[in-house]
Amino acid sequence: MEKLKNYINGKWSESSESQTSPVINPATQEVLAHVPMGANTAKDLDAAIMHAQAAYLEWKNVPVMQRVQPLYKLKSLLEEHREELSRIITLECGKSIAESRAELQRAIENVETACATPTLIQSEFSENIARGVDEFMIRQPLGVCCCISPFNFPGMIPFWFLPYAIACGNSFVFKPSEKVPLTMVRVFELMEGIGLPDGLVGLVHGGKDTVDAMLEHPKVKAISFVGSTQVARYIYSKGAANGKRVQAQGGAKNPVVIMPDADLDVTSRIIADSVYGCAGQRCLAASNIITIGDQSGGIKESLYEAAKLKVTGFGLDESVEMGPVISSQSKGRIEMLIEKGKQEGANLLLDGRNCKVPGYEQGNFIGPTILEGLPLEGDVVNTEIFGPVMSLLPMDSLVQALQFINSNNYGNMACIFTGSGASARKFRNEADAGNIGVNIGVAAPMAQFPFSGWNDSFFGDLHGQGRHGIEFFTQTKVVIERWPKEWTRKF
Amino acid sequence: MEKLKNYINGKWSESSESQTSPVINPATQEVLAHVPMGANTAKDLDAAIMHAQAAYLEWKNVPVMQRVQPLYKLKSLLEEHREELSRIITLECGKSIAESRAELQRAIENVETACATPTLIQSEFSENIARGVDEFMIRQPLGVCCCISPFNFPGMIPFWFLPYAIACGNSFVFKPSEKVPLTMVRVFELMEGIGLPDGLVGLVHGGKDTVDAMLEHPKVKAISFVGSTQVARYIYSKGAANGKRVQAQGGAKNPVVIMPDADLDVTSRIIADSVYGCAGQRCLAASNIITIGDQSGGIKESLYEAAKLKVTGFGLDESVEMGPVISSQSKGRIEMLIEKGKQEGANLLLDGRNCKVPGYEQGNFIGPTILEGLPLEGDVVNTEIFGPVMSLLPMDSLVQALQFINSNNYGNMACIFTGSGASARKFRNEADAGNIGVNIGVAAPMAQFPFSGWNDSFFGDLHGQGRHGIEFFTQTKVVIERWPKEWTRKF
Amino acid sequence: MEKLKNYINGKWSESSESQTSPVINPATQEVLAHVPMGANTAKDLDAAIMHAQAAYLEWKNVPVMQRVQPLYKLKSLLEEHREELSRIITLECGKSIAESRAELQRAIENVETACATPTLIQSEFSENIARGVDEFMIRQPLGVCCCISPFNFPGMIPFWFLPYAIACGNSFVFKPSEKVPLTMVRVFELMEGIGLPDGLVGLVHGGKDTVDAMLEHPKVKAISFVGSTQVARYIYSKGAANGKRVQAQGGAKNPVVIMPDADLDVTSRIIADSVYGCAGQRCLAASNIITIGDQSGGIKESLYEAAKLKVTGFGLDESVEMGPVISSQSKGRIEMLIEKGKQEGANLLLDGRNCKVPGYEQGNFIGPTILEGLPLEGDVVNTEIFGPVMSLLPMDSLVQALQFINSNNYGNMACIFTGSGASARKFRNEADAGNIGVNIGVAAPMAQFPFSGWNDSFFGDLHGQGRHGIEFFTQTKVVIERWPKEWTRKF
Amino acid sequence: MEKLKNYINGKWSESSESQTSPVINPATQEVLAHVPMGANTAKDLDAAIMHAQAAYLEWKNVPVMQRVQPLYKLKSLLEEHREELSRIITLECGKSIAESRAELQRAIENVETACATPTLIQSEFSENIARGVDEFMIRQPLGVCCCISPFNFPGMIPFWFLPYAIACGNSFVFKPSEKVPLTMVRVFELMEGIGLPDGLVGLVHGGKDTVDAMLEHPKVKAISFVGSTQVARYIYSKGAANGKRVQAQGGAKNPVVIMPDADLDVTSRIIADSVYGCAGQRCLAASNIITIGDQSGGIKESLYEAAKLKVTGFGLDESVEMGPVISSQSKGRIEMLIEKGKQEGANLLLDGRNCKVPGYEQGNFIGPTILEGLPLEGDVVNTEIFGPVMSLLPMDSLVQALQFINSNNYGNMACIFTGSGASARKFRNEADAGNIGVNIGVAAPMAQFPFSGWNDSFFGDLHGQGRHGIEFFTQTKVVIERWPKEWTRKF
Repeated sequence: MEKLKNYINGKWSESSESQTSPVINPATQEVLAHVPMGANTAKDLDAAIMHAQAAYLEWKNVPVMQRVQPLYKLKSLLEEHREELSRIITLECGKSIAESRAELQRAIENVETACATPTLIQSEFSENIARGVDEFMIRQPLGVCCCISPFNFPGMIPFWFLPYAIACGNSFVFKPSEKVPLTMVRVFELMEGIGLPDGLVGLVHGGKDTVDAMLEHPKVKAISFVGSTQVARYIYSKGAANGKRVQAQGGAKNPVVIMPDADLDVTSRIIADSVYGCAGQRCLAASNIITIGDQSGGIKESLYEAAKLKVTGFGLDESVEMGPVISSQSKGRIEMLIEKGKQEGANLLLDGRNCKVPGYEQGNFIGPTILEGLPLEGDVVNTEIFGPVMSLLPMDSLVQALQFINSNNYGNMACIFTGSGASARKFRNEADAGNIGVNIGVAAPMAQFPFSGWNDSFFGDLHGQGRHGIEFFTQTKVVIERWPKEWTRKF
Repeated sequence: MEKLKNYINGKWSESSESQTSPVINPATQEVLAHVPMGANTAKDLDAAIMHAQAAYLEWKNVPVMQRVQPLYKLKSLLEEHREELSRIITLECGKSIAESRAELQRAIENVETACATPTLIQSEFSENIARGVDEFMIRQPLGVCCCISPFNFPGMIPFWFLPYAIACGNSFVFKPSEKVPLTMVRVFELMEGIGLPDGLVGLVHGGKDTVDAMLEHPKVKAISFVGSTQVARYIYSKGAANGKRVQAQGGAKNPVVIMPDADLDVTSRIIADSVYGCAGQRCLAASNIITIGDQSGGIKESLYEAAKLKVTGFGLDESVEMGPVISSQSKGRIEMLIEKGKQEGANLLLDGRNCKVPGYEQGNFIGPTILEGLPLEGDVVNTEIFGPVMSLLPMDSLVQALQFINSNNYGNMACIFTGSGASARKFRNEADAGNIGVNIGVAAPMAQFPFSGWNDSFFGDLHGQGRHGIEFFTQTKVVIERWPKEWTRKF
Repeated sequence: MEKLKNYINGKWSESSESQTSPVINPATQEVLAHVPMGANTAKDLDAAIMHAQAAYLEWKNVPVMQRVQPLYKLKSLLEEHREELSRIITLECGKSIAESRAELQRAIENVETACATPTLIQSEFSENIARGVDEFMIRQPLGVCCCISPFNFPGMIPFWFLPYAIACGNSFVFKPSEKVPLTMVRVFELMEGIGLPDGLVGLVHGGKDTVDAMLEHPKVKAISFVGSTQVARYIYSKGAANGKRVQAQGGAKNPVVIMPDADLDVTSRIIADSVYGCAGQRCLAASNIITIGDQSGGIKESLYEAAKLKVTGFGLDESVEMGPVISSQSKGRIEMLIEKGKQEGANLLLDGRNCKVPGYEQGNFIGPTILEGLPLEGDVVNTEIFGPVMSLLPMDSLVQALQFINSNNYGNMACIFTGSGASARKFRNEADAGNIGVNIGVAAPMAQFPFSGWNDSFFGDLHGQGRHGIEFFTQTKVVIERWPKEWTRKF
Repeated sequence: MEKLKNYINGKWSESSESQTSPVINPATQEVLAHVPMGANTAKDLDAAIMHAQAAYLEWKNVPVMQRVQPLYKLKSLLEEHREELSRIITLECGKSIAESRAELQRAIENVETACATPTLIQSEFSENIARGVDEFMIRQPLGVCCCISPFNFPGMIPFWFLPYAIACGNSFVFKPSEKVPLTMVRVFELMEGIGLPDGLVGLVHGGKDTVDAMLEHPKVKAISFVGSTQVARYIYSKGAANGKRVQAQGGAKNPVVIMPDADLDVTSRIIADSVYGCAGQRCLAASNIITIGDQSGGIKESLYEAAKLKVTGFGLDESVEMGPVISSQSKGRIEMLIEKGKQEGANLLLDGRNCKVPGYEQGNFIGPTILEGLPLEGDVVNTEIFGPVMSLLPMDSLVQALQFINSNNYGNMACIFTGSGASARKFRNEADAGNIGVNIGVAAPMAQFPFSGWNDSFFGDLHGQGRHGIEFFTQTKVVIERWPKEWTRKF
């Protein structure tokens, strides 16, 4: 079984760390590879950063229209290798192959959007701000930018940052999740052919040691992180203490409101996709499903039917809609939270524990689960489960729902299902979350928009994607020029 | 002598802290007022914040075109009271009355620029990002925003933040420097008449206790700071550890390059204004004056003449060009650094110590000082003096100058004096500083541009002023809407 | 009775034309003033333009932050004189005093938005588009810009253009409608105190002779026009033939769709305000009211009640909601169209002809009128009536309504009343009109947005207000700079 | 010899016109093809437009991220076929193969920039402009857009418009110059493979009949033209008379100022490239070369040397720097103007008439020509020659040069060569031209910037390329939404 190599200075090289951690197919427990883990990974990181720094010093002077040419090639390569990469995502991360393909599509769209950098990086010029004085701004790159990405979207989340960072003239050092390093290893192999100078992008394996080394390295100017709130807070805090700019995206507990005028079938199908897609391991997974008003309409039954129909299994099977969760520990934790829900008084409408998939008996599968009647102040309602568990929370009014939503610490996503323009407007105006869906189950912003978490779902001010990406990966330089008249050559 | 009151919930109220610190006229040592200082100021702050939070909840729903109406009134009031306010600035801060007037002009320009918020706060709408799906972004306010401002620009720096914060729908709690609280006390009195709801803006006196309380208060969402690098780093680090967004501007050690083709007279006059203006207590004060090439041209002599001509004295005297430094401690520290320069081997071309101003013998005056021949690796060349001290550093070439400049930890400002477009372009492209002047001595961005410090001169990513102000004081909310066709009423 | 003077070169001067046309109070037929009309007005215009050209050559070099200072003063003056100006509007134009006040508010908002010009006029800077080459854009003014405004909004429409034009550095020559010249005469008197240089703004009275002289004058660079489609087409065509940039806004025939789910009372009230406000003399007046679906719901009755309640009378009477139409000719034309509607087969639900207002028997009053059952291909449905006439057009579906709407030649406004997000989205996406209202009766864009007519309602590409105003009143200058390295002074 | 076909509705079809005009290789007089010309081409055009209209009605609803996918493919195809297309350009247009390659590069850059449309087409959203009212803007396509392109850049100029038009959701009908139709015929063949729906893009051959049919066709909403000023004026005037939006770029007579501090060798080389490149048939060709100050420095000699070295010949010969002019008529006209220059009193420093290229004796060659001492008010100085002729105009000062430049009717380009920042700033601020070069010979804006002609060099307001392209090819739709609170479902 292969021990994964780092990609440093344009070459694949052995880690200086001998300890490793296994990469495991969550549907089979098969070990797919070994990933270096331990104190020596900090040395790898330092090497990657020093080469990245050297590459940056050249790259920043390459005109931006040339800097985006590799991205056009990358788009083509990702499209050509879409199927291959999708399979890797499914193998290491577990999600269904359709989900893997959709994930890659989002990656490609970010590459496309970063191709617009020559226009987006323009900044302002003002002639004659005072008599004979002109003032303008330049966006210049920062230097070495680092990214730490989570296990749930191995092929998408790095692209919220990487293409913008390099288009803006930075170098980029990336640490994949030790659970799912294979997708980006393959992407970096593909990137060898797109024309980037050696050292400009680096991939270094590791865990907390690597992260801490990043946060302390004086040449690292910016950190992009996506993961749990707890770690996001750590990254933001420690990165800031070291003077860096940081964008750190954390966890979520996403509410969805179903108004009585919502169409039952469409709504249930969309919500079930949101709750159970990626086995609930999405930071935009719907979790607390708030039904408003009289329940005789049958929304509960409709959601139950939609949940029950979800096909759980090995993601490479095209008919499968829901794969395993990432690890057996995660499975245990989720099952514990389901049990806790029961203890808190919930009715377990649908119990996904003891889910068995023939041929994949070792897989970390949990079937679609529905808890009904959880107390609003209980732990389960307020804990990110990161598994395929829906909490059904009946409430009396949209006003009550908004109060509940806005009392939550997270603010990643909030959705409403309604036919009413007025309800939708009230909701989007008042819900304290950065990504709002109206009749949308997974309100993931397109690449032109910032992925806007609020509150404990995000630390920093500039988000990933689009114009925020350009702003985060550049620093502004204001130039004020006066050319004294008396200095004009007179003849 | 008056003990200053806080402005909380639309009223002037006594601090709950009985200890005070004196506000001293630096030209006379006259005590102008007493400012509350001590642990109980944290209680004052909490009260201000809780009222600000309440006011915010209403204010955020006021349409933005109405929210800027008070700013139009504020502009008028600042213009009407320009002379009165300028005198207060000079009295508590020491600078010349002309400098105080210029400072206020910059404040007014920021108020004007924030009047543009109804246009600048607009964000993006995309129709049909997928069939039948629209996506757009809203910029919504954050909540309570706090500002801690330094002693050197009591009437300007608060306006880098305040008008943008409230135009964007936030409330704003302000702690002035305990050394110069009077200017903003008067401004807040004027603001009583501009139509802001009670509680929306608050002014709380204090020192480190107040600052720490701000950094820890859960209702405070954003911190704007300007001061020394050491404190800026503390603010950024601690603010981030508490999950807040922070913009923290620090110190500087600003280089100016004089190319041989620069006009001697114009250049010397401008540079002397930059080095000695505000008695050198500007974060954009020129400090290290790098002369390139053959010195036979007389740039040294020309600078010497320009420096010697500076009239030092009490700022309210219209003929005075340079006032005292802020405190006797500060005077002592600057004189110590001048002495240290001598010890490091410098030639003291002009010695401003022992500067006596008739009638103001107690004032913290230091005259224009020039050190020549300081070692480039010495302490003085690399220390922010914040006093009227010029270091003359002859170098051989622009390339050498840029290496020296870019090895500095700060990055607030770098200027060049030249007639050559090529030299200017090389400099603005390569100098590692966020504010660049070409034939400009104090490269202070106009209010439409961000005040862009780099490296140890700034922590965070979004600066003060202009569009950055709008971005810093709002959070992005992305809305994705689908109105399923089947839900359109069919008739 | 006064013969109105022109405002040329900072002075009020007699027209060189002796012929005049009367300005008549449409509620009383009282002659308010005499306005010069005839071939010699072209001489007046030429004088105004030549002075404007001279003033422009200085003004364009005044820094933009100074150029907007007069606009701040103008805002204050318009606020102070709001009541006086509102009365003038009502006297010469007939609308209710409340409508006059609202009109002025829109004028003020445009002045405010133009105050943002220092930020909005910034354009793009790109560093290093090729190695060592920088490229940027400057927005520079055009020169003398002219405006011809209509009778229906004497105090608002000039402000869609004037403040932007001068903030951008142009001079501005204005010809008011000969029917309502008094409002802007008073505004120009107020503008004498705001600090504009002589000649920068000019006001010249006249009619077609003046217009033709404008269209042919070689120093006129841009024409802004609002009026009928016929004249707009003429202006656009002739202005273009003379090489000028032109924005020409024409007439309208605005449809409003009422979906069955709309609230009857609110909807009827808003629509009646739109149809009958300003006596129907608005280019955004609702005219064709399309009711969808079963009429048993009572929308017809509800509209009838709302219409009948409208109080017609002399506009200065605070209780009056609807004033006279502009002239007896106009009254005759509208009554003729009502009669024609009957001839086309319509049922005259409410007949506003023979409307008598006690004390104002000579006024050009027409009461609220409702025609029901007009043929869709008939003349009345497709003719701009510009009077207080509602056509009720029942249709079967939104799809049918959109087909009808999009077959119309105009495209100024289209509105829908519905509670359904889906219906609203379909409508805003598909209706061929530049200003769309959702549960709005008069979809007038705020000053930050362009007033966007489509098809025969607008000729040109850049509209009035906001960013379009900045773009229209400036020309782009792209600068490409290379400073060959070999030209950097080497030492 | 082939009679060229039209590309209509996704198929290549015979023109309904039997008359033709020959396409001639200007270096050999070889007939390359026959192009339909005559009254019946209007029928072809009508067919193309009607299919384009049909295709538009579908295409406008395709999400913009999908609409740009064909442009990514087009970029790849243009890169792959760069050499083939460059050869076609050279064959039909005569320019050197290096020039053809550079031309294509600019085409590709416009395709890239149009790929940014999903971001650039976003427009503004304002929440709560009044209590409960939101307002936003949508950019929707216009319909069928037409383009008429000139002979001098057969492979570049269409790309100033085509990619933006279709990315914005329009369809596009193109008439190539009848002199050089082959390049775009080949491009359209390539475009068959990029995934555009049938009819969306059309190519119709013809001359004035086709143009007039375009200008009159009611389904054509926008016209983009590049050509002579005379025709541009006609297009703008007639297009406007038919209510269309028009951007019409005309001719030029571009001045270049050489300051005494410019480096002789670099300057001369760059200017000779500008004057003689494309045999002077560039709307950005330098023409009037203004030398400032004492001529003893040798700039005349230096320019003479640079001119003399230019290698004239058949463009496919890699060593050739300058090809023939487009036609024998053109050759005759240019030679006549040279002769006229002599008659006006000029000294013919270098005479390019009677230029013979061995093996290409029939070619329309004119060698590098320099006229010295032309009278400033004469015809030649003020006439666009569109051939390889340099006029040397010595002047005393930059001020005089600017007066001369600004008295010219054209305003396409003005350049200065200097080392002085002050001279450059004065020039870029004051020269009345839309494209300014500083030490640049051909100031062609990059694709992110508008190609900004002024005065008689451009009619309209929105130019080609970049953001202006997006604005020109869309119309703004402002939506104002209120969802009355009382309509929110209450439970």
